[in-house]
Amino acid sequence: MGNLGKSIAQLSVLLQTGALDPRALAEETLDAIRSHADQSIFIRPTPERAMAEAEISAKRLAEGRSIGVLDGIPVAWKDLFDMQGMATTAGSKVLAKSRPATADAAAVAALKQAGMIAVGRTNMSEFAFSGIGINPHYGTPKNPAATDAPRVPGGSSSGSGVAVAAGLVPVAIGTDTGGSIRIPAAFNGIVGYKATRGRYGMGGVFPLAKSLDSLGPLCRTVQDAVWVDAAMRGCTRSEVVRGGLEGQSLVVPETVFFDGIEDGVATAFEAALEKLTNAGVRIRRQAFPIFSQLFELIAEKGALVTAEAYAFHHERLHGENARNIDPRVVSRILAGQKITVPDYVHILQTRERMIAEMARSVAPGEILVSPTLPHVAPKIEGLLADDASFFAANAKALRNTQIGNFLDWCGVSIPCGTTGAAGMPVGCLLSGLPHTDDHLLAVALAAEEAIRN
Amino acid sequence: MGNLGKSIAQLSVLLQTGALDPRALAEETLDAIRSHADQSIFIRPTPERAMAEAEISAKRLAEGRSIGVLDGIPVAWKDLFDMQGMATTAGSKVLAKSRPATADAAAVAALKQAGMIAVGRTNMSEFAFSGIGINPHYGTPKNPAATDAPRVPGGSSSGSGVAVAAGLVPVAIGTDTGGSIRIPAAFNGIVGYKATRGRYGMGGVFPLAKSLDSLGPLCRTVQDAVWVDAAMRGCTRSEVVRGGLEGQSLVVPETVFFDGIEDGVATAFEAALEKLTNAGVRIRRQAFPIFSQLFELIAEKGALVTAEAYAFHHERLHGENARNIDPRVVSRILAGQKITVPDYVHILQTRERMIAEMARSVAPGEILVSPTLPHVAPKIEGLLADDASFFAANAKALRNTQIGNFLDWCGVSIPCGTTGAAGMPVGCLLSGLPHTDDHLLAVALAAEEAIRN
Repeated sequence: MGNLGKSIAQLSVLLQTGALDPRALAEETLDAIRSHADQSIFIRPTPERAMAEAEISAKRLAEGRSIGVLDGIPVAWKDLFDMQGMATTAGSKVLAKSRPATADAAAVAALKQAGMIAVGRTNMSEFAFSGIGINPHYGTPKNPAATDAPRVPGGSSSGSGVAVAAGLVPVAIGTDTGGSIRIPAAFNGIVGYKATRGRYGMGGVFPLAKSLDSLGPLCRTVQDAVWVDAAMRGCTRSEVVRGGLEGQSLVVPETVFFDGIEDGVATAFEAALEKLTNAGVRIRRQAFPIFSQLFELIAEKGALVTAEAYAFHHERLHGENARNIDPRVVSRILAGQKITVPDYVHILQTRERMIAEMARSVAPGEILVSPTLPHVAPKIEGLLADDASFFAANAKALRNTQIGNFLDWCGVSIPCGTTGAAGMPVGCLLSGLPHTDDHLLAVALAAEEAIRN
Repeated sequence: MGNLGKSIAQLSVLLQTGALDPRALAEETLDAIRSHADQSIFIRPTPERAMAEAEISAKRLAEGRSIGVLDGIPVAWKDLFDMQGMATTAGSKVLAKSRPATADAAAVAALKQAGMIAVGRTNMSEFAFSGIGINPHYGTPKNPAATDAPRVPGGSSSGSGVAVAAGLVPVAIGTDTGGSIRIPAAFNGIVGYKATRGRYGMGGVFPLAKSLDSLGPLCRTVQDAVWVDAAMRGCTRSEVVRGGLEGQSLVVPETVFFDGIEDGVATAFEAALEKLTNAGVRIRRQAFPIFSQLFELIAEKGALVTAEAYAFHHERLHGENARNIDPRVVSRILAGQKITVPDYVHILQTRERMIAEMARSVAPGEILVSPTLPHVAPKIEGLLADDASFFAANAKALRNTQIGNFLDWCGVSIPCGTTGAAGMPVGCLLSGLPHTDDHLLAVALAAEEAIRN
């Protein structure tokens, strides 16, 4: 029937006009998940739930009672969201026997409320603790953009990114603690929106580090993200409309973001800037010393994510279950053991100061624009050879995006072309100060139009 | 001239009408501080600054350019506020050689801006870490209400409480991390207002535990507190006006607050409730299991204040300076060493849950009413005999008020009579949910009228 790979906007027209039945779409989606060559994208499809929800949606649409643009649209959930009646495994084997969730996570309930069809739980880095997307228990989803050799999907929302990029679903929901939405979006050539922390209810989300954890959709277009954003907030429609680019100031951060950047990524990014300039945007470049200070802080005191992940997982890591957890996750979380309360308090207070300084460093309404990552998705081969290679690759993947988590930004990664003989995708990251999501999305709608056309 | 012991309201009338010159008032105040029998109330008077500020105020008032009700009113500052050109010693000898502050603390600058005259720095528990108010370095201010034997002033804002109760100043500014404003207010028979954390700028305030530290005035009436509150926020006038008591619901918390209460305190408190009821208030009594859970949490994991005080002071406590710090402060802060990051994160997250639960437990606009302390100010003799006695007395003094800090309440302690042969004051504490300060103060203005008349 050929509905795979379509955006929410495209599917919605078909569903709302009766040209497509939500049951047929759900079946087509579930068949495609079941028969896909890469069986590591989903940890568990949810056909019964999907068909039950599609049945209700079909009845609504047939009777002319559509509840909005998302009615009947399939959605996939990262394996760390509670879904009523299922264990939340967070990409781990040690959680496989957890008590089934008694209720949907707030976000799951909100999209169900908007009429969406939950088709399954997507793969992820164990406990969401890696930017590469490797999972030794459930397999590593392959990056569909890679034609030359298997390449990493990016993480931690690896399955969510690949499910969308492979055309299995128009949208999958991820979480982002250090880049876990924006990284797979950029590596796979799709859109990823990380909302400001606190924009959505966090009930029923398995945490990595609560001071940093945020949510958002991986999807095909910014407009699709805007619709999902509204529904996640419980709104029946979005107040975000495409902003004008004329006179909009974008700030290119000269510190950290471009260090060691691949030539092809730099070229694709500069081409995007040129398109934005032609569309009327003003570009200015600015150094941000706090970005390098942030990495000095991590080197000296440790990372916030490590401290909080250790706080959350420490009992699990010292018990006999530990041998069933990815040793590269265990060792990195265990590093949190060395972080003292004085260090942790120092990190939190430095963070507050840096957030305040950031707010003084840009003008109201200004948006940062940068490459999402300094490189394209690396080949899997070699990456796992030894711990040092893996840790270095992981640190590099998380480098740019984690700045936004630490400074509590919202961000949208937009595809901006491909590079190299393999034609690997490059991501352009727009970032806004905390709680400026509506403005960021309005600009991103227009920027995407400029960059992708 | 007899201006000592007057409220801001009383002094302001005299100043604004020209019946009293701010220079004369400043001189009278400085003389009284200099000649007072208890020389431990102030750590350091600031006569030069006071006379310079009084000079400017006098000129303004003489020329008919009064900048408001606080113009020319003396104010004393707890020894932990930065005052330009002076070392901030926080009641400690080890800070005596600190670099002089290069600027006033934000709160000091705000009250200077409102025309107030800074007459000195008041004594306090070392590093603000005790609810009793003992200071082995600068002496312990004596509670002026005590006629039978020397009694404690309450802490940590000991000098601020006594300076007001002794009539030396109409207002002194304190900080409150576990009760440090409300305790000395109640023990000394004056008003103490602890604003919700974050209501005022905290720049230039020597911290105890930033997650809990809050500011506010100790003064003679709630109306005086309202004026100071507005000035601390940089407002030229207050939007708080006396609220009606008719139909206002007050909630008496039955958990923790009344445990082991002295008969005389209970009697005085019930008499206050009766007066409030006669004034139209509705009283309801409710159990709050989270209040006892909070103490279980402290027993199990440690206190938030201890963790953060250790984070701030740890280098000082391990250095050779440690022997110049009150050993009872050192040992209590060192307890923070045992608190791990998992414990600390657990405490912070439990706090968030409890704050949310508290918000669901009372109706919008409801205010808690309780005895500020379960007892009157104890006699100093015996209290210091051994560590166990001191720590027990300290824990008892902080018990009721620290609940409000943990749950991020605002609070006003209002005198509600005296008890016993010694006629020691009792405090009635009104507490509001976070950021309901305006409503709390409006109700407190009316409640004070009912209780004290």
